[in-house]
Amino acid sequence: MFSILRINTATGEIRTEEFDSQEFLLGGRTLSSRLVSREVPAECDPLGRKNKLFFCTGVLAETITSSSDRLSIGGKSPLTGGIKESNAGGIVGTRMAQQGLRCIALEDAPKGDAAWKIVVIGKEKTELVDGGFLAGKGVYEKSELLSEKFGAKAGCMTIGPTAEILLHATGIACSDPHGVCSRYAGRGGLGAVMASKKIIAMVVLNDGEVKAEFKDSDGFKAGSKKIVQLLKENPVSTQFTKYGTAAMVDICQALKVLPTKNFRHGVLEGAEKINAQAMYDIIKERGGEGKTQHACMNPCAIQCSNVYPDKNGKLLCSPVEYETMALMGSNLCLKDLDAIAMLNRIANDAGVDTLDVGAAIGVAMEAGLVEFGDTEGAVKLMEEVRNLTPLGRILASGCRIAAKVLGVRHAPHVLGQAIPAYEPRGTKGMAMTYLSSPMGADHTFGFTLRDEEVPTSKEGKVALSKKFQVIGSRMDAMGMCNFVRYSVRNDMTPLLDLINSRYGVMIGAEEFDDVVKETLKIEHQFNTDAGLTAQDYRFSETFYEEAQPETGEVMDITDEESALARQW
Amino acid sequence: MFSILRINTATGEIRTEEFDSQEFLLGGRTLSSRLVSREVPAECDPLGRKNKLFFCTGVLAETITSSSDRLSIGGKSPLTGGIKESNAGGIVGTRMAQQGLRCIALEDAPKGDAAWKIVVIGKEKTELVDGGFLAGKGVYEKSELLSEKFGAKAGCMTIGPTAEILLHATGIACSDPHGVCSRYAGRGGLGAVMASKKIIAMVVLNDGEVKAEFKDSDGFKAGSKKIVQLLKENPVSTQFTKYGTAAMVDICQALKVLPTKNFRHGVLEGAEKINAQAMYDIIKERGGEGKTQHACMNPCAIQCSNVYPDKNGKLLCSPVEYETMALMGSNLCLKDLDAIAMLNRIANDAGVDTLDVGAAIGVAMEAGLVEFGDTEGAVKLMEEVRNLTPLGRILASGCRIAAKVLGVRHAPHVLGQAIPAYEPRGTKGMAMTYLSSPMGADHTFGFTLRDEEVPTSKEGKVALSKKFQVIGSRMDAMGMCNFVRYSVRNDMTPLLDLINSRYGVMIGAEEFDDVVKETLKIEHQFNTDAGLTAQDYRFSETFYEEAQPETGEVMDITDEESALARQW
Repeated sequence: MFSILRINTATGEIRTEEFDSQEFLLGGRTLSSRLVSREVPAECDPLGRKNKLFFCTGVLAETITSSSDRLSIGGKSPLTGGIKESNAGGIVGTRMAQQGLRCIALEDAPKGDAAWKIVVIGKEKTELVDGGFLAGKGVYEKSELLSEKFGAKAGCMTIGPTAEILLHATGIACSDPHGVCSRYAGRGGLGAVMASKKIIAMVVLNDGEVKAEFKDSDGFKAGSKKIVQLLKENPVSTQFTKYGTAAMVDICQALKVLPTKNFRHGVLEGAEKINAQAMYDIIKERGGEGKTQHACMNPCAIQCSNVYPDKNGKLLCSPVEYETMALMGSNLCLKDLDAIAMLNRIANDAGVDTLDVGAAIGVAMEAGLVEFGDTEGAVKLMEEVRNLTPLGRILASGCRIAAKVLGVRHAPHVLGQAIPAYEPRGTKGMAMTYLSSPMGADHTFGFTLRDEEVPTSKEGKVALSKKFQVIGSRMDAMGMCNFVRYSVRNDMTPLLDLINSRYGVMIGAEEFDDVVKETLKIEHQFNTDAGLTAQDYRFSETFYEEAQPETGEVMDITDEESALARQW
Repeated sequence: MFSILRINTATGEIRTEEFDSQEFLLGGRTLSSRLVSREVPAECDPLGRKNKLFFCTGVLAETITSSSDRLSIGGKSPLTGGIKESNAGGIVGTRMAQQGLRCIALEDAPKGDAAWKIVVIGKEKTELVDGGFLAGKGVYEKSELLSEKFGAKAGCMTIGPTAEILLHATGIACSDPHGVCSRYAGRGGLGAVMASKKIIAMVVLNDGEVKAEFKDSDGFKAGSKKIVQLLKENPVSTQFTKYGTAAMVDICQALKVLPTKNFRHGVLEGAEKINAQAMYDIIKERGGEGKTQHACMNPCAIQCSNVYPDKNGKLLCSPVEYETMALMGSNLCLKDLDAIAMLNRIANDAGVDTLDVGAAIGVAMEAGLVEFGDTEGAVKLMEEVRNLTPLGRILASGCRIAAKVLGVRHAPHVLGQAIPAYEPRGTKGMAMTYLSSPMGADHTFGFTLRDEEVPTSKEGKVALSKKFQVIGSRMDAMGMCNFVRYSVRNDMTPLLDLINSRYGVMIGAEEFDDVVKETLKIEHQFNTDAGLTAQDYRFSETFYEEAQPETGEVMDITDEESALARQW
């Protein structure tokens, strides 16, 4: 029914494996995590030949359902030492589905100083072609070169120069509908894993002719319309449409969980200079290429993305999202959206995760290398990253290593992955999620923030986090954008209707959740087998010892409580 | 009977605790590891207030027995994340015993930007005095300032500028009989632990008046003479007397286990330029302050230490020992003893472990930052360490972190501690010991090399390593220099005679070994509680996949086998 395309990067052998039709329900993270668990020895070196990289579409890719073409990339993470799935928007998922692929697997690794290769997947054949001309270049230039060579409509993925030298906080950039590799599977160092296999880019040509098939085409169309309707009615998703994720700045500031000054504080004086309205006004005022609304994939009824223009109206960075505005903005006490957009741009060009490197810059500021609030200094640090200097290498290794090398104890991470944009002492629900995620600290893994009655209290947060872990995992399983969850909340019926009408089955909510929960189990088992223990699922000791000034809260979640939240 | 002096570094509170006389057998590592296990929460941040630092003498300190005054320093290691005991020669152990102390404990840690303090321990009182005048200075200068202020005969300990900024591969330097802090408890990052408590130096004044007491004085004297006689008769210790540890260069080259080119090889072409004879000849030829024979403590019948002079006969570095000659010499393909001595000197001044930083420089050379064999380039890298540049910080973080930040997979360490000077694929006995040590890769933990019939085979190596783990641990338990083991081998009678005549007891070999084996158990339990698992007790994957060219051997010890060697 579907296929896995397996590419041995050591021998060049390429083969297609037919997918068991019993497993049609597996896509996105449910598929990638199962494949990692089955095929990657948990104790292996993430940058060695035993690791694999799986690129998986969801179960509704290329069905012209809103927001359903996300790509899940899975493997063992060099950043955390555990299992990793990082997903991104863009058009690669669509192109894969058009080639009849639900998964591409990069296997093995060439020895020694092998040459860089590009994987090119087309209707006629898959081949490994010379990629040397991309080496050392930034992601923007790589992106242009790939567009020129393979067409702007090809689905491309590439890595930055930081990933080429195997640094740990590096992602994989996927092309958006305009042929720009700007949609990042940024977390967990999968860029370095791709580099370790000497694959510098992957291209899925725009010549695929496989069309999605439907057992009940009319039913599917009706269901698909229903999703759009739900998205357009929902106040959260409509807010995303107008302001994008930047709307979170004010929400987090009000809740006192806006990461500030290397996660020492939860409130930034002057945060209104970098909030959603400020960004909206700048984009509208400058005009030009600026856009307050932008789709990362087609079709999408939310369009939360944006294009941030410079003073001359030229594209400076697209998108600029809340997580980056916090980690590269408030967390560094920067109150200048132009500076944040510039940091974001350089990070994208260098190929690093804006969260982990933003957190690392926060650590560097705490170490005194640059003052908090110093925009020029922050940009200089990012240029060190782009230029691969020793300091840049430290920062591109993520905040855990940066904290060790720079002598800072207050290191905002769990499992070595930087804490996203919600200061955990002020939101015990998000804290519980960070401590429960097999991927390292991750907000999409179980987003409790909008549903916490008393955010500062840990009461009931095991159950709340687990509830949202399931809700988030459902979206990942389907290859759906996480924001679709707001429109369906606890009721999966509209989404399951799509699966059922497409495949002619009768999957119930419980059956689907069994698959989701089994995925969580598999992921935690992998981490246990990889040697991660309860002691790894912790914040830095400083979070437990020092109160966050604005809430007066310390971290008080115990090992026993977080262990319960990881129990499935 | 004995006392522990407890110093709270946060409150300044100082108190003396009487030692249970039932525990007279505990000294050195048996004491430090028990105290760490009892008093340090295994999961704590090694650089936080919950870690403690214990300085313990052996059971025969100040008894004028040869080589019996070593100092064991214990705590949780920031380098490995597990338990640590690192021991050193010098005169601190003697001075402690003269003050009636078997242990000094540094507890808690001051908050924020507290001022540097010096702990001064004297007959009249113990106090914390201002240490700001030492901050940022090299260990040689600190050493001179301490001598000036407290007398050249005081027992001093200090840390280097790398430790002051909490880097992980930093040690604690202890003063030798000439008042120079050159005897390093170098391994495991205990320098950073001391710095985290804002203690920049510790001084045990030379005004102690406590004399060792003996239940059977004549018996003790006779036993003490017997040890000297055994040492003078033993061919291994007499070889150490003439050539020092440098004698190992030829032995390891012949066995093809001389670390070469970042542990890729076991043979260095031209190793005779840096062997014991070459060093002996240079020292003799240059004369001046040079010495082929030198005692790190008094009394010592071995005197394996040396003074390496520069071309003008002035002291360049003392001592220059085999482990450093390998890690900062052969491993970097340097065939120049002057360069090695210079690297050693800068490392001592910077306050870093020559093994871990030597290994980190090997990694940097593999990453292409400097060519293998480039003496000037190597010295420049060490100057980066001394000058605390970003690259220097990377190197002073040890080879595990350096390998991650510099993108090198072949990282020679176990548990994050660099492999000592015996390439493990060529000596499966030493490899088994590295994989069994709760302290990270460590040669003194169970030195099998001289007793391996077929070094390249893993057959019988579990038992062999365990045998030598016990032998090595006996020495650590007594505060004895490890080299005394050659003279007594399996027969502990001469050493137990000393304990028995001193304390008027009848400790048998089995009873003593029970204490030693219990120590090993306690240490492994601590690491388990700290979250270390079987997956941590491994070499880098490359050691298992790539044969060492000269022996054709890969690492073939399984997790199950090494687990057996850690089972007590």
